[in-house]
Amino acid sequence: MHPQILSVVCIGLSMIPAVATADLILDKIETFFIGGGEVVLEGLPDEEITVRPGADPILVDPNGTFETGQMYVQNYQLADPENQLPILMWHGSALTGNTWETKPDGGAGWNRFFLDAGYDTYVSDAVERGRASWSRFPEIYTNPPFRRTKQEAWELFRFGPPNSWSGEGASVSEAYKGQQFPVDDFDQLVKSFVPRWVSNNAATTAAYDALIKRACPCIIIAHSQAGNFGYRAALNNPDLVRALVVIESVRAPDPAQADAAIVADIPHLVILGDYISDDPVWPRLVANSAMWRDAIRAAGGTFDWLDLPAEGITGNSHMMMMDKNSDTIAKLITDWIEAQNLND
Amino acid sequence: MHPQILSVVCIGLSMIPAVATADLILDKIETFFIGGGEVVLEGLPDEEITVRPGADPILVDPNGTFETGQMYVQNYQLADPENQLPILMWHGSALTGNTWETKPDGGAGWNRFFLDAGYDTYVSDAVERGRASWSRFPEIYTNPPFRRTKQEAWELFRFGPPNSWSGEGASVSEAYKGQQFPVDDFDQLVKSFVPRWVSNNAATTAAYDALIKRACPCIIIAHSQAGNFGYRAALNNPDLVRALVVIESVRAPDPAQADAAIVADIPHLVILGDYISDDPVWPRLVANSAMWRDAIRAAGGTFDWLDLPAEGITGNSHMMMMDKNSDTIAKLITDWIEAQNLND
Repeated sequence: MHPQILSVVCIGLSMIPAVATADLILDKIETFFIGGGEVVLEGLPDEEITVRPGADPILVDPNGTFETGQMYVQNYQLADPENQLPILMWHGSALTGNTWETKPDGGAGWNRFFLDAGYDTYVSDAVERGRASWSRFPEIYTNPPFRRTKQEAWELFRFGPPNSWSGEGASVSEAYKGQQFPVDDFDQLVKSFVPRWVSNNAATTAAYDALIKRACPCIIIAHSQAGNFGYRAALNNPDLVRALVVIESVRAPDPAQADAAIVADIPHLVILGDYISDDPVWPRLVANSAMWRDAIRAAGGTFDWLDLPAEGITGNSHMMMMDKNSDTIAKLITDWIEAQNLND
Repeated sequence: MHPQILSVVCIGLSMIPAVATADLILDKIETFFIGGGEVVLEGLPDEEITVRPGADPILVDPNGTFETGQMYVQNYQLADPENQLPILMWHGSALTGNTWETKPDGGAGWNRFFLDAGYDTYVSDAVERGRASWSRFPEIYTNPPFRRTKQEAWELFRFGPPNSWSGEGASVSEAYKGQQFPVDDFDQLVKSFVPRWVSNNAATTAAYDALIKRACPCIIIAHSQAGNFGYRAALNNPDLVRALVVIESVRAPDPAQADAAIVADIPHLVILGDYISDDPVWPRLVANSAMWRDAIRAAGGTFDWLDLPAEGITGNSHMMMMDKNSDTIAKLITDWIEAQNLND
């Protein structure tokens, strides 16, 4: 699409065009790895690998020097950002930065929305996922990984009620009435799933802290598992995290163990989708953020709580950044950010 | 950086600006998964996973329904592409689409170069790598993965001569004289390495063929391991692959088993870096492409062979798209493409 020239001020041969455009005008997209360090494997026996069916196995030496613990980052830098603070988007468990890119139904995701709203952005793959790579287990990672099944995703992400998943696939499974997730494109979401470990939280937090020191002051939007990484990042970097938006966090700091006063100057916003109250899992998970909310409010801080159906916005799943009305929710976020009057 | 308005033609209230700019003006970046399908695991026993050191292990059921065999794609769509044919960039073994993004030294990579040259581009993560995800072994993938060590990369990528790698790291290892790869940033490259399998060639080829049916007619640039996927893609899709550029392929089709006449209408270009003639491995690998070259030429086809040091361009490693003079080589590619007079 070409820019539309709305008006022109001609001053001699120079002019200032006022351009209304649907194009994305970037200075650059900078990608990098951050965090982690060197690890050496030694003393492991050769391994047999069969290159082709029927061929004799070859012997491979798994020992050597590697990098581990890094994360991968894409930094979108607008040619003319309207806002000083960039937005960092942190994905959930078993997912990657693809969470924020094109939606499963082909629509534009939140990364594009926030760029169009004038924010520079950072999309990342956390330690162990996607382009961040993963390390050998059990020698470096101490456990084998989990993998998310289609049935688990269908129910945990609240696309349909408990036991509604059909082995025949999403198209014949019962979705919640009014569901905003494009369930016909469920397999596009499933293809984005990556294995996940439960033993890499320390490395993940260290890499996020390193990213914050490079990219911030900033605003962080954290989804699901990353909600707790976001809460921790604010506690670890209270001068650099200027606002925190948490989309359905699974966990939160325990007010008995973390000092909410540290983050009392950082505005927090939690956003919750639909179908939570009758869910067998989500009310208990949401309660973790509610306890942390109460502690921050008791310390004099701002902690807003946006229950979408209570505001008349219905049908949102756990993957609300991929839902059909994702722009509506993103607009609530940018409105909330503007209302905080964040000054760099 | 803001667009520089060089000249303006005013026609009433409308005008056509001629813009010279260093900005990247995109219609959109579309990401998607393509290829693969459903796989079911059943009958596997529960697995013990230890969530925290000292904690009792939990039992995890690894069975269920998953997707496998997909690849991940980022399609950069210019607002105003100058060329009809997009460029698809295919990375090498143990790497991802990050190969084509920001270079380890922070400079702009080939994806940006080709966008600035007016080509829409596709950057992808092949089956099993990066955001494409990977599947359980040995039940789905039949083998465990390999991992590339620092020493292997240092020598295989011809940053330094055989046995020049020091366990103390790149900064104290002997690099080839005149080396163009930014060896001080070697660890940024190593952090991009992902595990690789040897048993997924059929799935990888199938996903690439699906991508070609969606994205082409096109030009393909394929590096290292992907060189052979590129040669195969041309044989499988001779009407859709309009030109093929192969950067130091490891393998090539065997002229005794593949019919070079099928691709005789597709111009081929091979590019080779420096330090090959004395290398213990590369002369044998390069010979595979030379045999395929001779077969295509015998069938009447165009197969150009660009030996960079023979043309006075010295110091290039196997990772020439990350070398300090990467723009010089990219410009040779766009010049070669233009010289083919490809018409859609």
